Amino acid sequence: MSEQKNNYPLIIIGAGSAALTASIYASRYKVEHLIVGSAPGGQVFEAHRVCNFPTEQDISGAKLATKMQEHAESLGSKILVDGVIDIKKENNEFKITTKSKKIYFAKTILLATGTEHRQLNLPDEDKFTGRGVSYCATCDALFYRDKTVAVVGGSDSANTASLYLAEIANKVYQIYRKDKLRGETVWINQIEENEKIEVIYGTEVVGLGGKDKLEKIKLSKNYKNKNEISVSGLFIEIGAVPQAVLINQLSLGIDEAGYIKVNADQTTSQKGVWAAGDITNGSNNFRQIITACSEGAIAAENIFQFLQKNKL
Amino acid sequence: MSEQKNNYPLIIIGAGSAALTASIYASRYKVEHLIVGSAPGGQVFEAHRVCNFPTEQDISGAKLATKMQEHAESLGSKILVDGVIDIKKENNEFKITTKSKKIYFAKTILLATGTEHRQLNLPDEDKFTGRGVSYCATCDALFYRDKTVAVVGGSDSANTASLYLAEIANKVYQIYRKDKLRGETVWINQIEENEKIEVIYGTEVVGLGGKDKLEKIKLSKNYKNKNEISVSGLFIEIGAVPQAVLINQLSLGIDEAGYIKVNADQTTSQKGVWAAGDITNGSNNFRQIITACSEGAIAAENIFQFLQKNKL
Repeated sequence: MSEQKNNYPLIIIGAGSAALTASIYASRYKVEHLIVGSAPGGQVFEAHRVCNFPTEQDISGAKLATKMQEHAESLGSKILVDGVIDIKKENNEFKITTKSKKIYFAKTILLATGTEHRQLNLPDEDKFTGRGVSYCATCDALFYRDKTVAVVGGSDSANTASLYLAEIANKVYQIYRKDKLRGETVWINQIEENEKIEVIYGTEVVGLGGKDKLEKIKLSKNYKNKNEISVSGLFIEIGAVPQAVLINQLSLGIDEAGYIKVNADQTTSQKGVWAAGDITNGSNNFRQIITACSEGAIAAENIFQFLQKNKL
Repeated sequence: MSEQKNNYPLIIIGAGSAALTASIYASRYKVEHLIVGSAPGGQVFEAHRVCNFPTEQDISGAKLATKMQEHAESLGSKILVDGVIDIKKENNEFKITTKSKKIYFAKTILLATGTEHRQLNLPDEDKFTGRGVSYCATCDALFYRDKTVAVVGGSDSANTASLYLAEIANKVYQIYRKDKLRGETVWINQIEENEKIEVIYGTEVVGLGGKDKLEKIKLSKNYKNKNEISVSGLFIEIGAVPQAVLINQLSLGIDEAGYIKVNADQTTSQKGVWAAGDITNGSNNFRQIITACSEGAIAAENIFQFLQKNKL
């Protein structure tokens, strides 16, 4: 194991929107720091199109992420493309071990590793992601104007996705493995009254079909004598999973869904550890690129203040 | 008085970053709305340069604001360039009267009118704003690398501005009318130990000089036998004032500094009224363009949910 010892006042773990914005602010505050992330740009980088970032009407996720990365790097940010596999508090520092066995020490940590959308784990699910398969109705609904789409799930996020999609798409099938939708009654009532939405209960999506783009889905049992439905879009709304390993290693306080509980200043239950972006319960749990950026900025400002106070 | 009656599910008051982002999200949620603001683009529009927006390395405030406005308008936003002078809750609606005596009714209100930086009210203060006079060290410090600057004020915001500027500028005069700095001891200690910072107590800035850009400031009494100091920048850090009229008319709960207290979902103490941006105590009181945008997005999503629930 190479023990190339390196110390930073701040190490940012993750390299998505929250991390990159935090880095920009940290650089402006002259807080020396290192970004360690396995995928520069994070989840945004994978988005086919982003149409809800306030200053960009229509941009690829890759381009948007690159803009942030270039901004961060223009101010001197160093991004180590590597994953953090272990983190320990030793004395008043954090010891970080990466996949490539590098070791770093940091006075403060910003955890911004985001979430992974829960997948159905179907064959070709990755292939069709961004080509009909989406995990975010808010992000992608407008691409399906007057089309037929399906939503998987029965909780509030799936229900609101169906209602939102019904205002844009021509037809929405909501497919749920249980016999009754969960979540708030208002949504369920509205789904029942909405002529565009058809809920298929007790059924799972078991296959995806199409050439270059998604064209149809296969069901676990027949619906109106067919086990296939033609759709242009499939919205998989079965929740997201915060990256749990580091959360557990740091014993951070989490909410019921596993997200890190943050205070208004993005501090966590562990002194010296801040969190920002999709991994937190901040921003009213509304996980958007713009909210992640904001949390990153707030965290960086607060870390700057913390480091200044602890200089003496 | 023309009584052109108009009803909207949502009226957004203000037309800055928070308002425009809220409008973008509201449009995406198909929430019909009107923006009423006296200055499209808001305070951002006036910023000479913006270098801390994550996707823009260096952009004029006007251009950044225009990007957001064009995005909002591309989705159908209507901006009424007018000020709101009166707002009343009548039954379950809000009645809004504008300067030009137009009257509108709204089911929900998003208040995003921002703040005004407290000014020194010196002759030529407006003329030099963006040409040496700044109200935001975070925004503008990097323009003064290796230059001489002055900071007015003695509270935490002035103190942190001096410390931040000392890391960039060559020399920082902090001018304060009282005999002792206020705020947190750590900042004061660091200011006292910082060789670049010279605090001039019991003194006020009473004049600004320069041709096209700020070149010097006049003091209310002599410092080292002179009543003038040559500076490239003057940072006026004596606080900001939330736009209070509508806050009072709506009886919104405010904090000690007059900012609207918001919950995590940007709701206020008044049912049907949301607030976002600089006018709130949200985002850990870190008032940035990116945090205003984020609050606008969160508010719009929550208003959408509120209107959906109240459809029945």
